[in-house]
Amino acid sequence: MTLDHQVADLSLAVAGRHQIRLAEHEMPGLMALRAEYGPTQPLAGARIAGSLHMTVQTAVLIETLTALGAEVRWASCNIFSTQDEAAAAIAVGTGTPEDPQGVPVFAWKNETLPEYWWAASKIFDFTDENGQPIGPTMILDDGGDATLLVHRGVEFEAAGAVPPAPAEGDADYTAEYAVVLDTLRQSLATDPQRWTRIAASLRGVSEETTTGVHRLYQLAARDQLLFPAINVNDSVTKSKFDNRYGIRHSLPDGINRATDVLIGGKVAVVCGYGDVGKGAAEALRGQGARVIVTEIDPICALQAAMDGYQVATLDDVAGSGDIFITTTGNRDVIRARHMVAMKDKAIVGNIGHFDNEIDMAGLARVPGIERVEIKPQVHEWIFPEASETAQTTATEGGERRSIIVLSEGRLLNLGNATGHPSFVMSASFTNQVLAQIELYTTDVDADGEPGVHVLPKVLDEKVARLHLEALGVELTELSKDQAEYLDVDVAGPYKSEQYRY
Amino acid sequence: MTLDHQVADLSLAVAGRHQIRLAEHEMPGLMALRAEYGPTQPLAGARIAGSLHMTVQTAVLIETLTALGAEVRWASCNIFSTQDEAAAAIAVGTGTPEDPQGVPVFAWKNETLPEYWWAASKIFDFTDENGQPIGPTMILDDGGDATLLVHRGVEFEAAGAVPPAPAEGDADYTAEYAVVLDTLRQSLATDPQRWTRIAASLRGVSEETTTGVHRLYQLAARDQLLFPAINVNDSVTKSKFDNRYGIRHSLPDGINRATDVLIGGKVAVVCGYGDVGKGAAEALRGQGARVIVTEIDPICALQAAMDGYQVATLDDVAGSGDIFITTTGNRDVIRARHMVAMKDKAIVGNIGHFDNEIDMAGLARVPGIERVEIKPQVHEWIFPEASETAQTTATEGGERRSIIVLSEGRLLNLGNATGHPSFVMSASFTNQVLAQIELYTTDVDADGEPGVHVLPKVLDEKVARLHLEALGVELTELSKDQAEYLDVDVAGPYKSEQYRY
Amino acid sequence: MTLDHQVADLSLAVAGRHQIRLAEHEMPGLMALRAEYGPTQPLAGARIAGSLHMTVQTAVLIETLTALGAEVRWASCNIFSTQDEAAAAIAVGTGTPEDPQGVPVFAWKNETLPEYWWAASKIFDFTDENGQPIGPTMILDDGGDATLLVHRGVEFEAAGAVPPAPAEGDADYTAEYAVVLDTLRQSLATDPQRWTRIAASLRGVSEETTTGVHRLYQLAARDQLLFPAINVNDSVTKSKFDNRYGIRHSLPDGINRATDVLIGGKVAVVCGYGDVGKGAAEALRGQGARVIVTEIDPICALQAAMDGYQVATLDDVAGSGDIFITTTGNRDVIRARHMVAMKDKAIVGNIGHFDNEIDMAGLARVPGIERVEIKPQVHEWIFPEASETAQTTATEGGERRSIIVLSEGRLLNLGNATGHPSFVMSASFTNQVLAQIELYTTDVDADGEPGVHVLPKVLDEKVARLHLEALGVELTELSKDQAEYLDVDVAGPYKSEQYRY
Amino acid sequence: MTLDHQVADLSLAVAGRHQIRLAEHEMPGLMALRAEYGPTQPLAGARIAGSLHMTVQTAVLIETLTALGAEVRWASCNIFSTQDEAAAAIAVGTGTPEDPQGVPVFAWKNETLPEYWWAASKIFDFTDENGQPIGPTMILDDGGDATLLVHRGVEFEAAGAVPPAPAEGDADYTAEYAVVLDTLRQSLATDPQRWTRIAASLRGVSEETTTGVHRLYQLAARDQLLFPAINVNDSVTKSKFDNRYGIRHSLPDGINRATDVLIGGKVAVVCGYGDVGKGAAEALRGQGARVIVTEIDPICALQAAMDGYQVATLDDVAGSGDIFITTTGNRDVIRARHMVAMKDKAIVGNIGHFDNEIDMAGLARVPGIERVEIKPQVHEWIFPEASETAQTTATEGGERRSIIVLSEGRLLNLGNATGHPSFVMSASFTNQVLAQIELYTTDVDADGEPGVHVLPKVLDEKVARLHLEALGVELTELSKDQAEYLDVDVAGPYKSEQYRY
Repeated sequence: MTLDHQVADLSLAVAGRHQIRLAEHEMPGLMALRAEYGPTQPLAGARIAGSLHMTVQTAVLIETLTALGAEVRWASCNIFSTQDEAAAAIAVGTGTPEDPQGVPVFAWKNETLPEYWWAASKIFDFTDENGQPIGPTMILDDGGDATLLVHRGVEFEAAGAVPPAPAEGDADYTAEYAVVLDTLRQSLATDPQRWTRIAASLRGVSEETTTGVHRLYQLAARDQLLFPAINVNDSVTKSKFDNRYGIRHSLPDGINRATDVLIGGKVAVVCGYGDVGKGAAEALRGQGARVIVTEIDPICALQAAMDGYQVATLDDVAGSGDIFITTTGNRDVIRARHMVAMKDKAIVGNIGHFDNEIDMAGLARVPGIERVEIKPQVHEWIFPEASETAQTTATEGGERRSIIVLSEGRLLNLGNATGHPSFVMSASFTNQVLAQIELYTTDVDADGEPGVHVLPKVLDEKVARLHLEALGVELTELSKDQAEYLDVDVAGPYKSEQYRY
Repeated sequence: MTLDHQVADLSLAVAGRHQIRLAEHEMPGLMALRAEYGPTQPLAGARIAGSLHMTVQTAVLIETLTALGAEVRWASCNIFSTQDEAAAAIAVGTGTPEDPQGVPVFAWKNETLPEYWWAASKIFDFTDENGQPIGPTMILDDGGDATLLVHRGVEFEAAGAVPPAPAEGDADYTAEYAVVLDTLRQSLATDPQRWTRIAASLRGVSEETTTGVHRLYQLAARDQLLFPAINVNDSVTKSKFDNRYGIRHSLPDGINRATDVLIGGKVAVVCGYGDVGKGAAEALRGQGARVIVTEIDPICALQAAMDGYQVATLDDVAGSGDIFITTTGNRDVIRARHMVAMKDKAIVGNIGHFDNEIDMAGLARVPGIERVEIKPQVHEWIFPEASETAQTTATEGGERRSIIVLSEGRLLNLGNATGHPSFVMSASFTNQVLAQIELYTTDVDADGEPGVHVLPKVLDEKVARLHLEALGVELTELSKDQAEYLDVDVAGPYKSEQYRY
Repeated sequence: MTLDHQVADLSLAVAGRHQIRLAEHEMPGLMALRAEYGPTQPLAGARIAGSLHMTVQTAVLIETLTALGAEVRWASCNIFSTQDEAAAAIAVGTGTPEDPQGVPVFAWKNETLPEYWWAASKIFDFTDENGQPIGPTMILDDGGDATLLVHRGVEFEAAGAVPPAPAEGDADYTAEYAVVLDTLRQSLATDPQRWTRIAASLRGVSEETTTGVHRLYQLAARDQLLFPAINVNDSVTKSKFDNRYGIRHSLPDGINRATDVLIGGKVAVVCGYGDVGKGAAEALRGQGARVIVTEIDPICALQAAMDGYQVATLDDVAGSGDIFITTTGNRDVIRARHMVAMKDKAIVGNIGHFDNEIDMAGLARVPGIERVEIKPQVHEWIFPEASETAQTTATEGGERRSIIVLSEGRLLNLGNATGHPSFVMSASFTNQVLAQIELYTTDVDADGEPGVHVLPKVLDEKVARLHLEALGVELTELSKDQAEYLDVDVAGPYKSEQYRY
Repeated sequence: MTLDHQVADLSLAVAGRHQIRLAEHEMPGLMALRAEYGPTQPLAGARIAGSLHMTVQTAVLIETLTALGAEVRWASCNIFSTQDEAAAAIAVGTGTPEDPQGVPVFAWKNETLPEYWWAASKIFDFTDENGQPIGPTMILDDGGDATLLVHRGVEFEAAGAVPPAPAEGDADYTAEYAVVLDTLRQSLATDPQRWTRIAASLRGVSEETTTGVHRLYQLAARDQLLFPAINVNDSVTKSKFDNRYGIRHSLPDGINRATDVLIGGKVAVVCGYGDVGKGAAEALRGQGARVIVTEIDPICALQAAMDGYQVATLDDVAGSGDIFITTTGNRDVIRARHMVAMKDKAIVGNIGHFDNEIDMAGLARVPGIERVEIKPQVHEWIFPEASETAQTTATEGGERRSIIVLSEGRLLNLGNATGHPSFVMSASFTNQVLAQIELYTTDVDADGEPGVHVLPKVLDEKVARLHLEALGVELTELSKDQAEYLDVDVAGPYKSEQYRY
């Protein structure tokens, strides 16, 4: 039994196993893949380095990968998102065929940044039967941190350069970037070809999110992509399900657990009307909030208007909202100046991706501001009585005005609640498993340079199909005549590539 | 400082005080009453025996009552609903004018039934300046347990009878009723005129819920009501707000915290389409569930159909729902035979009032059934492999079929989450405070026998008015001409008594 | 065959008969009453003077009354609302038992005010078997015009006074009131005891609307009510169905037929959030509009906010709405100053009751304004290029700004579309028939002065029950135990009188 | 003035002109194009053969094309959809710069099939300054009939073959196809190279609908496409706006005008959950119907379930629906066997594309069936009392069971109402005008064989942008930093090609 996991103890593991068993019931796609592919073991010999929120649902994903033959190592892709009992249950082997000896898991709730990047680095340390280091065959990534580490590592190794140590004030300094470089510096000191070796063994990466996919397309556009990538995010059954329906569920869940504040009757400002924003707006309206949307894309803005939402700029509505949610994947969406202008006890949270959607650093720099922890992941930021930036911060009662920030600006559904529910993750993760099989069993870049690919539509439809029975859906079958009329196969795929669902 | 409270310790109290401060921001009605009535102390000299879920919101209610001059003693009206930090914060005096010495609180999360009824009994034990027993002037009740205790106590005292000790199998036996009688037996042994004295000192009771109000009208109809009652439940700003909008918020919150199961795409069966059922159905639909309603009242059934819901009988849909919620105030709504017929992992919860909406006793009697605690207030009931009552309980995978029951059939929003949010309770509790003032300062039964009264419409409108500014509502004012045309006063009330909102 | 009806011609009648047949399918309540009461003829000998929009649905009502034995005379209660083919079909007898000789109908689309009041007067002119005048036994009223005529008639006859002829500028002058007095003056000239005789023969009136009911309560409060009244409007199955669900249907229908303008994405301002306003807001939101509500009642305003609508004053939002709908029953809700401030091509309509909700007279007085008929019941009011009241009326393109007014400020669902659909009218009219039976067969004022009554709840529930099967509703039946627990009869009624649905 | 139009008379034209003026206010995209491109006349010299529903909105499109310099000839693409007053207004020149001499329009409401195809043929007959025949430079097509005519014409001309005259019973016989061949036979008889010449002059076609686009991709896949095509349908601002939001508006409008039946509380079956189906389901739910969806595509089916709809097969629910709407683009979606199984007075309509979605021919073949015209485009099909195909067709009352079919199975929003509203068509038609400019001013097939293209995303965003101001949308602008972070231009386009909106 591997014992890498800090929190691995038996009672946590037992609690986690319980939850995993219940989650399996809600993840029919993954269970169907186990049934379909278990016998043929298409991932036998595969070594998968996984970096994705270490939740109960991810546990079912991990155990599906191992059930299909893979060897797996895992870290979380967010310092707050690990559910310790899930990590424990996975780390502690149960001796069953699916989980003979436990999976090395490097993740716990509330990591520091150095711990986080240490964990991200550890998932690559597979060993062969002789205990010798051997690279992973695939990365399963969420947000692209694991992929980033390999690419920056190879870059420094190729240049023979020591990663610099940027200081506050440098142009490219962020606290996190300094830690990344630190991690790489240590790695190079130990083994100057480690990342080059790892990259060579990789058949590819499957990426979960908009943000990570965006990074991959950038790399590909600059011819810097080191191995093929499958863009899982843009499977319809991912982007239109997890992003939208998952958020619809987990956004109010996160707000509720964090604040217990009535959403009904409140003015909620949703920044961004992509799939995540659409799910967020629908959820808040479904709870009786009046939703205002901010957008930079005229098409999404028009959709928001046609769906009945007011579309305004944050500068105009910062003073009238009660709840502010970022969903953009962009940076600096809510700035310090917006937060200074907000009503007393306004709630601010991010459900997009990185924590730079809300300018937490800028908020912390407001002169005289005070930060009080209400409970873990819920902080009250109390403005000074009067300052240049905020002239009237006192409420009528004379108390100092404050705002409530969730999860310190990181993903609130993971930080304040338990993330997306199992069913919606089942659709996303079924795509992930199919993508890992594609990467391992086919040559996805047969015809050229490493590129970024989406799964073929027929697999996308398969993912959907595996989730219908659980919802009691009765699908109609095309007759042969109808299929001919539409010029499609009776078994699909049914739509052209332009189709947007 | 009174130290009756088992869990009263300072760190809990500090945490509770934090939450109370944030809740005050969400309870503008109560804060406005403190501002309006604090100077004149209309409740000076009043002694209030309170029995209502001991939550953070109730803490704000209690401190509003004391801010208006009352002396208060408190118990919860549900064995699971106390938030210990709120109880602690109230019990531990802060030395401020609103809370000079702490309020005696007899409540903690997860009471036993004997503890519960002991606590209900303790709230009546006021003492005068000489430390002599003195009765309360008012009861503030939720569900009617405190009122019941007085009425049954007086009944036994008048009859000079010793309360019997019913045994299982007796016609009127329930576990709880046996405890009630036990409590009264002890009381009579100590002081055979205690309840008679208490009843004599009471100017009245204000009652919070449909269930409690129903008991009061029954007592009044039988000429057995011992003191006047104000029916707070039927204030529009209570029944149409707390019952509906509170449930809309706290039902999905409770389901989420308990199960983390995706509500979207599921079939949710809501038993009852009164105000609670309307809020429940709206919330579940807002999360993307397909809602089926069951009803016994043709008018409510027609409303459900017109609102786009399927209306069916539970016998017909027990096998096709994923989530079942009772909202009726009736008993035996979900019976053992229904639960036996449910799909694997169906979720069953009650958000009505008493725990007899779901026949938990019947479920426990299913031969061979097993109960596993997933976590506190979440239990899996696993059916035997085959039995007379449930011939095919195995799932496809061969595992035994099970269902998930929330809060052991008691109120799931209180047991699995934190109950209604502050804002909605502010409307309800503002009615409560106005009702207590009415009972204490006016003779509500001036013209006859003790009766059950609703607050005058103008006070109902006042409660609404006190909550508008917080939601950014701009109210239009009637012109004098318009008021004349409508035959109302410019200041209200605006509607006839028949009006249903 | 009676030939009172101006437009009665056979081809119209045939078309109307077709529509009546289809409407019968959508009016299960009325058809069930024919089946239940046809054999016993409870209205045999009754003479009913009806004043209610002469639509296809009303035709099914009229033929239900005659099928139960009544003799009926009919006028519309709105100058625009008659569907001529329905009037024709009813006026032209078909020789069947339900309609042996036609019903005298005095109604056509687009009446003048004098024609309207002439018609209202004609419905009282029953004759006995000898052709002698005989008064009606009941009025079936909508808005109270027929009832008003009798009361004012009796008043003038009692005073022996000749109704005055008010002139423009007099305090109580309105164009319509002048016509009413004119009508009465003619009647008194012919027969100085006509109204006194009619009043004497009346057993009562059943009234359909909020507005009419309000007048009745005013009369009763002043002890001026001449005969008992049944308030049909406040049956739950009327006010909560017709007012809400009927409007939800017929408001967008009216806007669409009148303007063909996309509702989605528009800002719609709904004045009033009673039942009619609730239905209006739901319909507009359902079409993707952003709805802003105006309210004077704090309770309704709070409901609107909790339902997710912005609540503002018309003065604040007159310049930002695209569609303005009045639903209040009040006067001067949209004033000329509001209309002058509106955006180019803003749409203004009334779905409340009287045409004084929108100050059409004030609009017509805006100096330089022009009125262009786009099509019947749709008028463009074009503002002058510049004036004191509206300084900048030109649009960017230099054209003069204008607004679109529907149905000249009268009920737009009747003027621009076909009114409420049959099913919803079936609920209302089933109440009307039951009320007429109550008035005719029982002494509703047995215990005192003429008063205003609502139908007993058990009849209200009956109306609902008769409409469930058509919607596929399966009602649950209370067990005897449950009924006992709730203290109700298994057959209902199920709710207390305070219950608001 | 050209007088090709049968119904062109002045009073119709005046009414049409009124409506066109009001529609212009609702078509900000087209008006903005006139302002932007009017001065440079990018379509000067272009000859456009248009085949698209001849409505008021199309009139604004036509006048935008002429305002940009084009010469235009027009036919409708549906025998029922022409609004005669719009056709008249366009056909009758007003002498203004935009409309100097009228546009030849070949369209009227209720064409026969031979008239329809005659009209489709006439739009190609441009003449040069000498009156000599000259081919069009572009087709603007809706559904592909104009494009089909050219392709089949060229095919027959190339083969030197006379189009056959298929008879009923032949494999490829349909009534319509026989007329097409007839039309071509006449054309070839007159001029055996007409279509070849027309094809040679064409720079391309822009196609409006899913159906037409599908045909184009088929032609391109078989290398039979004779000229480039721009797929307007798959612009986001077309498929996600017109298809969804247009249907949301015009579906209930069509049902209401046709039947006046209450939609609330009814069971509505929507066949297909593409964009049209999504809009249909939303509209019907918004009116309080309970919507059941049928689907063949598992992804769309999963979306429907997640949006809270039941997904079933038509065979299972044919007997329980009240309203049936096809939205698929497929054939034989509702078959005779389904209609035979429907409830009495069920309503059946098509809002997809061709009239073969509902098997009208099969319905007409039910032995003993009778067809009664309720009003134009609304027919009752009355089943025989008993037959093999429908054993129990009598209703309880003993009447024969019937269903109501809208627009004879053709597009009900055009046949029973006035089609999509102007605003939504403005988005679609702004795409059309931009596509026509692209075809005329650029070589869209610069790099190869004639293909099918979509408009560049930046034009798609431009279309959206032109419609925001009218809805009061305030768009946020990206900062330079943010744009860099996202790797996009501040001015857009903002999304990757995979993005689905």
